[in-house]
Amino acid sequence: MDETLSDLASGKISVEEAKKKIRLHSIDRLQDMAKLDSGRESRRGVPEVVYAESKKLEDTLSIMSRLVQESGSAVVSRIRPEHMDEVVSHGRALGRVETGKNCSSVHVRSSDPPPARGTVGILAAGTSDVGVAEEARLMAGAMGCECLASYDVGVAGLHRLLPEIRRFSEGGASAIVAAAGMEGALATVTASLVDVPVIGVPVSVGYGHGGRGEGALSSMLQSCSLGLAVVNIDNGIGAGAFAASVARSAA
Amino acid sequence: MDETLSDLASGKISVEEAKKKIRLHSIDRLQDMAKLDSGRESRRGVPEVVYAESKKLEDTLSIMSRLVQESGSAVVSRIRPEHMDEVVSHGRALGRVETGKNCSSVHVRSSDPPPARGTVGILAAGTSDVGVAEEARLMAGAMGCECLASYDVGVAGLHRLLPEIRRFSEGGASAIVAAAGMEGALATVTASLVDVPVIGVPVSVGYGHGGRGEGALSSMLQSCSLGLAVVNIDNGIGAGAFAASVARSAA
Amino acid sequence: MDETLSDLASGKISVEEAKKKIRLHSIDRLQDMAKLDSGRESRRGVPEVVYAESKKLEDTLSIMSRLVQESGSAVVSRIRPEHMDEVVSHGRALGRVETGKNCSSVHVRSSDPPPARGTVGILAAGTSDVGVAEEARLMAGAMGCECLASYDVGVAGLHRLLPEIRRFSEGGASAIVAAAGMEGALATVTASLVDVPVIGVPVSVGYGHGGRGEGALSSMLQSCSLGLAVVNIDNGIGAGAFAASVARSAA
Amino acid sequence: MDETLSDLASGKISVEEAKKKIRLHSIDRLQDMAKLDSGRESRRGVPEVVYAESKKLEDTLSIMSRLVQESGSAVVSRIRPEHMDEVVSHGRALGRVETGKNCSSVHVRSSDPPPARGTVGILAAGTSDVGVAEEARLMAGAMGCECLASYDVGVAGLHRLLPEIRRFSEGGASAIVAAAGMEGALATVTASLVDVPVIGVPVSVGYGHGGRGEGALSSMLQSCSLGLAVVNIDNGIGAGAFAASVARSAA
Amino acid sequence: MDETLSDLASGKISVEEAKKKIRLHSIDRLQDMAKLDSGRESRRGVPEVVYAESKKLEDTLSIMSRLVQESGSAVVSRIRPEHMDEVVSHGRALGRVETGKNCSSVHVRSSDPPPARGTVGILAAGTSDVGVAEEARLMAGAMGCECLASYDVGVAGLHRLLPEIRRFSEGGASAIVAAAGMEGALATVTASLVDVPVIGVPVSVGYGHGGRGEGALSSMLQSCSLGLAVVNIDNGIGAGAFAASVARSAA
Amino acid sequence: MDETLSDLASGKISVEEAKKKIRLHSIDRLQDMAKLDSGRESRRGVPEVVYAESKKLEDTLSIMSRLVQESGSAVVSRIRPEHMDEVVSHGRALGRVETGKNCSSVHVRSSDPPPARGTVGILAAGTSDVGVAEEARLMAGAMGCECLASYDVGVAGLHRLLPEIRRFSEGGASAIVAAAGMEGALATVTASLVDVPVIGVPVSVGYGHGGRGEGALSSMLQSCSLGLAVVNIDNGIGAGAFAASVARSAA
Amino acid sequence: MDETLSDLASGKISVEEAKKKIRLHSIDRLQDMAKLDSGRESRRGVPEVVYAESKKLEDTLSIMSRLVQESGSAVVSRIRPEHMDEVVSHGRALGRVETGKNCSSVHVRSSDPPPARGTVGILAAGTSDVGVAEEARLMAGAMGCECLASYDVGVAGLHRLLPEIRRFSEGGASAIVAAAGMEGALATVTASLVDVPVIGVPVSVGYGHGGRGEGALSSMLQSCSLGLAVVNIDNGIGAGAFAASVARSAA
Amino acid sequence: MDETLSDLASGKISVEEAKKKIRLHSIDRLQDMAKLDSGRESRRGVPEVVYAESKKLEDTLSIMSRLVQESGSAVVSRIRPEHMDEVVSHGRALGRVETGKNCSSVHVRSSDPPPARGTVGILAAGTSDVGVAEEARLMAGAMGCECLASYDVGVAGLHRLLPEIRRFSEGGASAIVAAAGMEGALATVTASLVDVPVIGVPVSVGYGHGGRGEGALSSMLQSCSLGLAVVNIDNGIGAGAFAASVARSAA
Repeated sequence: MDETLSDLASGKISVEEAKKKIRLHSIDRLQDMAKLDSGRESRRGVPEVVYAESKKLEDTLSIMSRLVQESGSAVVSRIRPEHMDEVVSHGRALGRVETGKNCSSVHVRSSDPPPARGTVGILAAGTSDVGVAEEARLMAGAMGCECLASYDVGVAGLHRLLPEIRRFSEGGASAIVAAAGMEGALATVTASLVDVPVIGVPVSVGYGHGGRGEGALSSMLQSCSLGLAVVNIDNGIGAGAFAASVARSAA
Repeated sequence: MDETLSDLASGKISVEEAKKKIRLHSIDRLQDMAKLDSGRESRRGVPEVVYAESKKLEDTLSIMSRLVQESGSAVVSRIRPEHMDEVVSHGRALGRVETGKNCSSVHVRSSDPPPARGTVGILAAGTSDVGVAEEARLMAGAMGCECLASYDVGVAGLHRLLPEIRRFSEGGASAIVAAAGMEGALATVTASLVDVPVIGVPVSVGYGHGGRGEGALSSMLQSCSLGLAVVNIDNGIGAGAFAASVARSAA
Repeated sequence: MDETLSDLASGKISVEEAKKKIRLHSIDRLQDMAKLDSGRESRRGVPEVVYAESKKLEDTLSIMSRLVQESGSAVVSRIRPEHMDEVVSHGRALGRVETGKNCSSVHVRSSDPPPARGTVGILAAGTSDVGVAEEARLMAGAMGCECLASYDVGVAGLHRLLPEIRRFSEGGASAIVAAAGMEGALATVTASLVDVPVIGVPVSVGYGHGGRGEGALSSMLQSCSLGLAVVNIDNGIGAGAFAASVARSAA
Repeated sequence: MDETLSDLASGKISVEEAKKKIRLHSIDRLQDMAKLDSGRESRRGVPEVVYAESKKLEDTLSIMSRLVQESGSAVVSRIRPEHMDEVVSHGRALGRVETGKNCSSVHVRSSDPPPARGTVGILAAGTSDVGVAEEARLMAGAMGCECLASYDVGVAGLHRLLPEIRRFSEGGASAIVAAAGMEGALATVTASLVDVPVIGVPVSVGYGHGGRGEGALSSMLQSCSLGLAVVNIDNGIGAGAFAASVARSAA
Repeated sequence: MDETLSDLASGKISVEEAKKKIRLHSIDRLQDMAKLDSGRESRRGVPEVVYAESKKLEDTLSIMSRLVQESGSAVVSRIRPEHMDEVVSHGRALGRVETGKNCSSVHVRSSDPPPARGTVGILAAGTSDVGVAEEARLMAGAMGCECLASYDVGVAGLHRLLPEIRRFSEGGASAIVAAAGMEGALATVTASLVDVPVIGVPVSVGYGHGGRGEGALSSMLQSCSLGLAVVNIDNGIGAGAFAASVARSAA
Repeated sequence: MDETLSDLASGKISVEEAKKKIRLHSIDRLQDMAKLDSGRESRRGVPEVVYAESKKLEDTLSIMSRLVQESGSAVVSRIRPEHMDEVVSHGRALGRVETGKNCSSVHVRSSDPPPARGTVGILAAGTSDVGVAEEARLMAGAMGCECLASYDVGVAGLHRLLPEIRRFSEGGASAIVAAAGMEGALATVTASLVDVPVIGVPVSVGYGHGGRGEGALSSMLQSCSLGLAVVNIDNGIGAGAFAASVARSAA
Repeated sequence: MDETLSDLASGKISVEEAKKKIRLHSIDRLQDMAKLDSGRESRRGVPEVVYAESKKLEDTLSIMSRLVQESGSAVVSRIRPEHMDEVVSHGRALGRVETGKNCSSVHVRSSDPPPARGTVGILAAGTSDVGVAEEARLMAGAMGCECLASYDVGVAGLHRLLPEIRRFSEGGASAIVAAAGMEGALATVTASLVDVPVIGVPVSVGYGHGGRGEGALSSMLQSCSLGLAVVNIDNGIGAGAFAASVARSAA
Repeated sequence: MDETLSDLASGKISVEEAKKKIRLHSIDRLQDMAKLDSGRESRRGVPEVVYAESKKLEDTLSIMSRLVQESGSAVVSRIRPEHMDEVVSHGRALGRVETGKNCSSVHVRSSDPPPARGTVGILAAGTSDVGVAEEARLMAGAMGCECLASYDVGVAGLHRLLPEIRRFSEGGASAIVAAAGMEGALATVTASLVDVPVIGVPVSVGYGHGGRGEGALSSMLQSCSLGLAVVNIDNGIGAGAFAASVARSAA
């Protein structure tokens, strides 16, 4: 703005021209304000997420294409099984595609990955929780974090869980995602054993009362362990993004 | 009946007299049938339970008196705090009164206790769960079981829980009651560690979503550990009676 | 450990060698601790359960194969209808397959069954509850219990129920599973008539308010009969395992 | 109207007078229409019900007075305990007051009771359900029905229930009210045993999951017995009115 | 029994023979007791109901056949759409089949219908409620009641509803079934206008909060009109049976 | 801004001074943007609402004082009964206080009321709904609307409701608030009879299932009448403000 | 009626003829009363809505045809995807068909549209909310309102939302529909920024706890912004009709 | 252990002595394992939390005393109002007591505070949310974090919220706690504006549907903004601890 005003003061531009320039500048500032861009730098490398479940396939594909072209990267989540193949092959035409076991999300990247920063640990209580855990791994990886993962380590086998948690601590994980359906006790037990923030993800596994993840959600919210926060049922993307955000600031 | 018929056959009694006796006998059999008395013997020593919460104090006291006089024993449950003193002193006039820490139930007994039979383990996750655990202990004790109890052993302190469970195993507990509020993970973790039946009692501790024991209930019902069954929230009496019933048949 | 220390004391091994051996020994003890193996002996004959509902068919089959090969036995539960034939034929290649009427679980066994120990009674209120009851029967049978079963004996026909309960008592059942959907009154009525522990299994039958087993669940939890504990809706496997565990310790 | 028109035709009244009379007549018909008075005759003897819970005492008393003065009778329901004495003494000043054991409703009557018509049976599962059952008895009595009542006959004591149901049948009850809290099985069992309509009233007794009558409500709605309909939790007035309505039309 | 005892007294039979005969007689009495057959006569003409939804087609057909052959009549409810044709054609082979518009139940009868007794009114609020209303009509008809039906008379068109209710009153309906989904106001409004018992059937129509009939159910339970009782959502069979039971006793 | 720039161009102010003035101007625009003040004019006369329920009395009083002093008017809602007298007397010291029958809100005004604009109709189904209806009347009045009110006109007395709705139509009400607890049918019936927008307010009256206004809420959301929108249970303030907003724009 | 009475007074017609005419007139008045036709004029141009979801295709088509022929216009809502093509082509045979993006409703019109009256703003938070927003737009358009629409303006991008709200204010929108799933914050934020009534429509988007629109519904009902009322989840038709009703009275 | 073994090797101790020492050492390691003490160092300065709500005052005081004496610090949470004064004065006898406005928790410290590490931002939407926000501030402060707090900045006043969020960003907050009741939109809006992790705490403010914090909880779980995780309703302690844990690792 200095420039504009100096130009006006020195007669290089007219009042009208100055007004127009300042108005544009003002809108820019307004939008910056709304975006609170002070933290923006740190956002680099965070891919946009396309929620595919309630979209038509062609819409998903075109939004994905646009995002990859604009920003070099996109995560597409909750892809319906019958659309997965097409999303992947479409993604391959755009760049590199990362997928996960039993996971309904993919990460497409045309640009180079950001330099690795921060380490996240990912736990899944049972085989049925792996897809959601993988989603968290995918998202944290897309944000440039190194991921340590260990699956099938529910509380019914404490002797399997304890060494894995130790491995995470030793590996420098500064945030741990614990994905668990049914009674969801993994998140509570993990948070009682570690000193880093634990993000619980209830998984929609289990039938009957408290099924579809509701039991796991309420047990995580009720947890008597400090250092545990939760995201919604099956929201592996949210857990991964949150954990990565913690890990990156710790790195 | 043999006697009646023989008497009739031998002319000692008339047909009318025989008919009347048989009718009475038949009603007796009918009631036995309804009661399925085959298992009745094993019921000895099981006190009747008076649910005091929704009763007036005088009704509670008079029912308690009648039961103790008739059967030598009664458990009074969910006594309102303001009535506790009177129930206890009234009970003392009838015989011996057993109470528990933070526990709203009492056991009144005028007769000698049954010979001890069977051993039950009782766990409480936190101090707030002790009242319900004590209720289970009281009931199992009233049914003649020896009780091993260990409180404040929630999953947030696994290093405290493991030795206690081992102590129960070594002490011969053939059923374990696990009382836990909040996220209720104690029941799942316990059932994953032992081979005897575990009875989970959710406790109405905790606030917010899943509070008042609902979270503990659904996590226990969703438990991925085999060998766990549950009773309703705060139902320490039911858990103690069930556990004692298991322990006595195992003894 | 004695050996190691003696060897060290006698100079047969070096301090380093002793240290290494003791460390390994210590890990073994730790894992034993976590496993609480004191009760382990009694676990023999308990098959592992594979929860097939949320698994891909190939995963289910390969886990099933591995378990049967390792331990001689596996129960596969909640098999999707379209996968049942393949699971059964795959199981036949591994050994003997037991199934149940309308039941989505199977038991595969390559080894000889354990010696029969304990007797369990199984009740189903209506034809729609038979599948869950059969699941309990299958599991209790897999754990070596003899099973007495009686189906279609809901409270709407008390004259049919009473003789069956009597038959169970006379047959020596030391635990009874009561599977019932809709209003679930069977569990309450049964528990009011017998002296052995009753395990209620709500069944996801019924529509409208309280449908899908929720009404049965809450009526069982609210039951005014002592001696009743519950497992989650449709959890026949859990009920069978719990009942067998009771029956075996009573045997 | 014939008269008015004849009067007009014969010149006895003017067009304006005729118009006015017809308008009034039309309003009368409209109101009759809205009231559907065809069935009105049968309403005689049905007292108005004043729902006292959310009213101030003085409002309750003045409405009660007005109703008794206008119609000779009023039922006041859900009177707060601290207001009961004043309502009763105020009612005594107006006529005869009927109350029930543990019952928060009263019936005040200044006129002679209607001739008795129809018989209603009233069951309560436990002592805690008596207040609601008494409310049904009070209302049915206020509507001129004879009431047979039997309390403390829950399904945990089938041998006590069966003779009472038989007594009702023999006593000519053409509708039965079954008041039950906790698991509410009494309504289902009763409806499976009788041929007359059964009205289930869940009672807000019981704690934990399904407590406050919700478990009883859903088990009654889920009941597998035909011939059972329900009113809301604790709505003894509604059950009594409905049963009396059935019994009176049967009489 | 007199005969047996006389025979014994007169030496015609031995004590053993007498004992056996009396035992059999006692069992008969017991079963009579359980069946409470005093009211049995009035049950004539009530068909058994086969709940087809959770049964395999072949099971449904064979149970239906057996019932029709044994008792001359059967109602099959909640037939899955894809099975309807076969159930109907199978039923035609057994006798006369009655169906209803949009209705998933059928009534099959081989014997002559019972003499008509009692009149029932049936209301449906909208076109989507007709199937459930027809189910009530079918059941009440199967129990020998005459049915007056009027559909598409929801409270959004009071001017259509009022004349229909009047028609029912004039037609002698002694019980009215009101089937309504969405907000279910029809039941309340109807009960406020008539003097006969109204049975509300919430219908699982409507989406969002309170959808699938839950809103209608709670508004009916909360109804401020006396004389209304409800059955569960979509339970047209139960409503029809209850209404017929009322109407028949009034006839 | 023109002025600033002209001053700069003509050398009256320096670049620094211009920059500072423009920055301030920009902040003003930004805040205007956030406030979207284009519609601000129409806000005149809308009092701020102080939600007193969860505040300490002294906080409520001081906020109320500040608002009245600043803006001439304040509505204080959900005042606890024990605080009402002090709020009113404190308000009287500030200006004129308006209250309502059974209503927990008050309106305090020191300035002259705005010129009356628009008419709102207010209905309450029963005496228990009057407090919430009065709250709506108070708020709409505070916003300068004329209010027509009619209480105790529930659907159980259609002949009382119809003339009142007609009176509202004739009185020019351009929005109607319908406050109703229990089954809440008043809102649906009203919306089916009028052409102006109806705002339903469920009232927390009624016990059992769907009690505390939940049944009324779901029946209003499920309503089959177009032209009905709802606010939350007991939110008379919100309903009154919304209705006044509609009525004022229609005026 | 004057005419009839004058005719009678002057002998032109007989008493019988007069009676018949007056009776018909009276019925007309009654029906008018029930319809409250005073507001009827303003209803012109409001199409009837056919709720297609639970109807068979042929029923939907024939009702649609009849309505268009009778009234020149019909809205068909919640058309199942597989029926959409046929509904549209059938509608085209009747007149002009309007559809919306991702929208399951159509508007069919044979007559000329009503003169435009009033302006409504329509917001959708995300792409998944567009279908419901379009439904509101369709309905408001069918009622003759001009619609300003802006989609994909959720609170996660406040800088996109603010200008759109400003545009609506400037465009003269006198009511705004805000369609939002997931957390539904759009409705609250919008109502905090504008002075016209906002109608929130929760959309059944989102999974896990609070999914299917329940979270959005409760957040809208809990909104701390005055001037917001809601319709049920996915009820775009209701929102559009309500908003149009407000906008038309403001016009 | 080296020492022990060397001693044995060198004959200083016997095999028995060595065995005993190693056994003790092994238990120590086991307990370390269970405690996973690798991360223990970082735990310094984390006070134990005493949950006072369900404890008797004397128990709370004695546990508090013991903790402060043992570890120099304790947080006591959810103190009942009537106990607050005694807890504070008791705490003062132990050291320094920190409290918060409207906050039911206190922090008692006898030792010097840990060196400040990390910065946490704390937002409260309204005055009623301040108590919970203060609890988070207290806990984060107790863990050595600097806290920036801003209250009464709900989304109904975006122009107040935006500058505060900017202030937090500039102040270096690396985690933000957002406490909000009612519709809870503050958490979503905040997370959409910043790049640091946001921890949402629903507050039990608000009545009706979604009241007591349930609406805020589900809207936070449903939030469309990445970077948001939640703790249970009113769990300010948990939120503060989690945020401090993030901030400290970032510091």
